[in-house]
Amino acid sequence: MGKSNIHIFAHSKDLKQHLGILLKGRGRIFVLADSNTAEHCLPLIQDMLPLDGKDTMLMAVEAGEEGKNLQGAMDLYNQLIDYGADRNSLLINLGGGMVCDLGGFVASTYKRGIDFIHLPTTVLAQVDASIGGKTGVNLGLLKNMVGTFTQAQETLIYPEFLNTLPKNEVMSGFAEILKHALIADQELWKILSSADYVDLPLIKSVIPRALKIKEDIVNRDFKEQGERKKLNFGHTIGHALESLILESPERDLLHGEAVALGMICECYLSMKSKGISNDELDRICSFIALHFKGIELNRMQFHRVIEIMRHDKKNKQARINFTLLHGIGASIVDQEPEMEHIMEALGYLERYPFPS
Amino acid sequence: MGKSNIHIFAHSKDLKQHLGILLKGRGRIFVLADSNTAEHCLPLIQDMLPLDGKDTMLMAVEAGEEGKNLQGAMDLYNQLIDYGADRNSLLINLGGGMVCDLGGFVASTYKRGIDFIHLPTTVLAQVDASIGGKTGVNLGLLKNMVGTFTQAQETLIYPEFLNTLPKNEVMSGFAEILKHALIADQELWKILSSADYVDLPLIKSVIPRALKIKEDIVNRDFKEQGERKKLNFGHTIGHALESLILESPERDLLHGEAVALGMICECYLSMKSKGISNDELDRICSFIALHFKGIELNRMQFHRVIEIMRHDKKNKQARINFTLLHGIGASIVDQEPEMEHIMEALGYLERYPFPS
Repeated sequence: MGKSNIHIFAHSKDLKQHLGILLKGRGRIFVLADSNTAEHCLPLIQDMLPLDGKDTMLMAVEAGEEGKNLQGAMDLYNQLIDYGADRNSLLINLGGGMVCDLGGFVASTYKRGIDFIHLPTTVLAQVDASIGGKTGVNLGLLKNMVGTFTQAQETLIYPEFLNTLPKNEVMSGFAEILKHALIADQELWKILSSADYVDLPLIKSVIPRALKIKEDIVNRDFKEQGERKKLNFGHTIGHALESLILESPERDLLHGEAVALGMICECYLSMKSKGISNDELDRICSFIALHFKGIELNRMQFHRVIEIMRHDKKNKQARINFTLLHGIGASIVDQEPEMEHIMEALGYLERYPFPS
Repeated sequence: MGKSNIHIFAHSKDLKQHLGILLKGRGRIFVLADSNTAEHCLPLIQDMLPLDGKDTMLMAVEAGEEGKNLQGAMDLYNQLIDYGADRNSLLINLGGGMVCDLGGFVASTYKRGIDFIHLPTTVLAQVDASIGGKTGVNLGLLKNMVGTFTQAQETLIYPEFLNTLPKNEVMSGFAEILKHALIADQELWKILSSADYVDLPLIKSVIPRALKIKEDIVNRDFKEQGERKKLNFGHTIGHALESLILESPERDLLHGEAVALGMICECYLSMKSKGISNDELDRICSFIALHFKGIELNRMQFHRVIEIMRHDKKNKQARINFTLLHGIGASIVDQEPEMEHIMEALGYLERYPFPS
């Protein structure tokens, strides 16, 4: 059930050949894209899909989290019905985390499940969202509150898509690569932290290594009973910050940017529980502050962040559950720090001079 | 994944003991009931549930199919959030097919899945809806268009609940028992067709046998790749009739009543494809006509029924898929009769003098 099936394609002709075999003999084919990927990514693969015929149908959604909810899912169900999708149909998710999560959820529940494949187009989706079979939609401001564990039939990684991304999207995905290094791969941390520049060529070069970290963990613990929770490092506070900003008029914090800030706070908690030293804390946080933007929180917002965290899916019995580091490249799940330390961790964000 | 876990309880003390063990050490417990089962069934088990404490929460929905949709699911998600349901929580579905389908869907998707158990309260749910891990909600008039394959942690059969049912509900469930006999158990057909009365004592006596037929089929083919489709006998036309009546102002056809009519039509198709003889056709249809109510369809409605069937989940490539009999107690899946015969089969409904 939980076995992943990931292929990486350096050249378009290899992707084309693979898709040709994969799509042969399927019923109708549906491509889910958002307004960005329909414009920038679809043209890169248009000649690989039988988009000219009656058997392929493009479904486009607005880019951004706003449409990732049950109403958005319902719109897609209705399009699938209108265009005659049956159990032999296939959905191709061409996009970032939002498209993969939403499309995966719709495919896994439409008529109790049709096959889907991911063609992730962002760094974040290539190393994280498209790997591991988590699908989901938001409920109000609560992220991925409704979803399933369902593996894509295949995930096809085509790094050429990344050339279409703005820099902040690239760096948002880089946060997840950094997370993978911190929780499980000290060598990867060394590569990243000693690089002269964090740029697209560096990121492309480490994608296979970074996604393998997630793939291995997921294959050992598909339903997140234990080890998979390691991947939540930075996400308990990160998700809450993301929800908080969604409530504000600016709404300009990307998922990875929120996770980067979450990692600063959760590194602080790791130091408090003696998982990492003060020196390690400082090295990691300085590196993050160099590459990501900060936010300013007031005291009232601290309390709102705590309140949001109390609804986190990962909690049991109303305690707030964290994954923390015990060393760089090693992590420990199911930690429940003192509330006082959580408040300090949020305050610790002010310590770093982020670029503005 | 697909293994069922069904227990039958003749005595309340056995059910109470079993529930005691099952609920021990769980987090919060949620009971989903409809307006009927909250009134008539909950009192029968109230002392078996820790309903007095803060850790158990009753969620009630209106009886009937109207609330079995994504909006109804959303209401339940929000209640689960408000009362702090986490991944250690348990949902108990106390009701008929609607409650089991809706509750199963909500539990299988809330936070990507929490445990649920079924306490089916109708004949239909005890022999059919609570067995086999199909969950779902309707989309518009299309039944179970969105759902998952997720087994309940346990299904607990307590026949005492059936004493609370009106006769038409009992007979609606009897249609599924009859279906199980016709597709897979000639002996059961003999027991049913030779009984002096079809009444609750007879039905209670055959429930274990009838549910075992479904359980065995599901255990061999959980995801409905092949053999499980046998259970769709009577349902291709039955579902369409049910949807048709939902569109009309009367809305008074129960699921099993629709399936009984569907079985008449699909027995006719079975005769046409030489699966059963004219004599067998007549014996089955006379038996059904004796115990179920009929409907009157005009020619325009025939076409609407066909149109609805074209959207059936079971179809591939826009052909209408049927399970037909090839003998009493034997069935064959993936049949695609001529449209002309399907029209004749609908017309065949007029042949039998139903009680009014």
